[in-house]
Amino acid sequence: MPVHKEDRILLAHGGGGRLSRDLIDAEIVSRFGDGPLKGLPDGATLPISSDHMVFTTDSFVVQPIEFPGGNIGDLAVHGTVNDIAVCGGVPRWLSLGLILEEGLPLDLLRRVLDSLKAAADACDVTVATGDTKVVAAGQCDGLFINTAGVGEKLETFQLSPANLQPGDRILVSGPVGDHGFAVLAARESIHIQNGPQSDSAPVHRLVQAALPQAADVRFMRDPTRGGLASVLNEMVEDAPIGISLKEEHIPVSPGAHAVSELLGLDPLHVASEGRLLMVCSATSAPDILTAWQALPEGQQAIEIGEVTSEAGRVVLQTLMGGRRLVDVPRGELLPRIC
Amino acid sequence: MPVHKEDRILLAHGGGGRLSRDLIDAEIVSRFGDGPLKGLPDGATLPISSDHMVFTTDSFVVQPIEFPGGNIGDLAVHGTVNDIAVCGGVPRWLSLGLILEEGLPLDLLRRVLDSLKAAADACDVTVATGDTKVVAAGQCDGLFINTAGVGEKLETFQLSPANLQPGDRILVSGPVGDHGFAVLAARESIHIQNGPQSDSAPVHRLVQAALPQAADVRFMRDPTRGGLASVLNEMVEDAPIGISLKEEHIPVSPGAHAVSELLGLDPLHVASEGRLLMVCSATSAPDILTAWQALPEGQQAIEIGEVTSEAGRVVLQTLMGGRRLVDVPRGELLPRIC
Repeated sequence: MPVHKEDRILLAHGGGGRLSRDLIDAEIVSRFGDGPLKGLPDGATLPISSDHMVFTTDSFVVQPIEFPGGNIGDLAVHGTVNDIAVCGGVPRWLSLGLILEEGLPLDLLRRVLDSLKAAADACDVTVATGDTKVVAAGQCDGLFINTAGVGEKLETFQLSPANLQPGDRILVSGPVGDHGFAVLAARESIHIQNGPQSDSAPVHRLVQAALPQAADVRFMRDPTRGGLASVLNEMVEDAPIGISLKEEHIPVSPGAHAVSELLGLDPLHVASEGRLLMVCSATSAPDILTAWQALPEGQQAIEIGEVTSEAGRVVLQTLMGGRRLVDVPRGELLPRIC
Repeated sequence: MPVHKEDRILLAHGGGGRLSRDLIDAEIVSRFGDGPLKGLPDGATLPISSDHMVFTTDSFVVQPIEFPGGNIGDLAVHGTVNDIAVCGGVPRWLSLGLILEEGLPLDLLRRVLDSLKAAADACDVTVATGDTKVVAAGQCDGLFINTAGVGEKLETFQLSPANLQPGDRILVSGPVGDHGFAVLAARESIHIQNGPQSDSAPVHRLVQAALPQAADVRFMRDPTRGGLASVLNEMVEDAPIGISLKEEHIPVSPGAHAVSELLGLDPLHVASEGRLLMVCSATSAPDILTAWQALPEGQQAIEIGEVTSEAGRVVLQTLMGGRRLVDVPRGELLPRIC
């Protein structure tokens, strides 16, 4: 079947003239045009009822654009929603910046935007403003997305790595590394039965489920690029505390484990895109885990370790009974994972 | 002189590990790390004192990255500041999303970030949050930037194209098209004496200078991609009014005029990145022009036309005494101008 030129992005779709308007009307306004995007103003005028907001941004360059468990569109929503959530914000508004390569199949763009719309609806956030650019063939790699996000700060959370005290507990909401391993397996054409599926998902409901224990929550992160190892090392860097992990408690899915063995990659270094890492007091940990396990996205939530007085060190108590230092990953381990 | 590998962006700068942290510390934290970026949280928690905010985004893919009168860094600040300003907002916070190509010279990145920092300082906006991705050589074209911006809404402006009434006046704050012509001349290696310089600049002080006449201001835009022709046509589309322009009053710099003649491009179709277009009542126009002309960025401000009852049409009264319909530019006239 011949692919018609009209079924692909043309350079002229980015020139600011008639074809630009047609593309925006057909693909953006049709999906997102009901709210503040209506009439395509230069910016969106939005009500805000909190006296503090949470503001964040991420660019997405994941390759391949579609992978087991998601695509760049829902990933862009989840990444930004999750950054707001772990800062103690309720996600409200998103911006959508698209950079499209000349020749991009319109079908692929439509699938990505459909996923993005569905994810935004599921997270109760609104795409309020956007921008679309087109570059010539060979000047980007298919499709890059930037989302910035604004949320309203929940005053109940007072979050800082400086809050961490020896004895505090480390919780994760589910298995780690599935997103990174799923993208890698797709990119390297590794086909295994029951291979990893991306965990790309929002974590804001998990954050809100911990609201009754908010006073005992010290800090939250989502372990994306660099994995659990990077996030935990950042927490203890230049701090008077350390972290001890129990390897036997760190949840890794069978699919992620298989790809991890094949590629020789440590699951602690690999990105999740739908997991919540929380540090809380020892007394509050059981209640938070119970609340998380009652949610579909928290069924496999578990305590993986605790804060120690071993300054600046993240240590793994291995299955074999040994101790291993968990370092920040070095080098170009996983480019374009998100 | 050999260029050392260390003087360039490496793929590993984007992996989320140690080299990523080093790049962010050396290039981002050193410039922007004093305020809400300090400690590199997933998002910035920011005070907001208005009950409405203005939220906007733009991606910048301009080629060449540096051009007469600016570079992609200050352009990214001005583009987003101006979108907030024309919506009646006071620009406050920016996000900074970088997509870097492996091999990008670090010197170039530093010049761009220096310009971006200087422009943000001059506009009194703060880079509050950011994200940096690296893609392999050949997967983007040097450097793309996304900025999203948040401003506090000035309640005094009630802006909408629906406000336009026959007899209203059209003002511009200075010559049109210089940015687009400067970028095109640089890209096409057109070297002429006194060639065009980009007009890349903020317009928020011009907006604020019109505050005493706010009740008489109908609508504002900055005529970027697609130029004055696109912006004016969008205003009258499906509306009961039209616009009449006087060609003799439309300011075009000598450099822009020269490139326009060389390339056969209509200055009405070419982007400015530091000009304000305003529609206001006939009675308020002289006071607004006087206020603008008192500012360095508004010295050449002028009235270029008025709103008519000729529904949906933008008409140019030519120098020769004729009438010409001003249409939206078609096709791929000017890709990667911003």
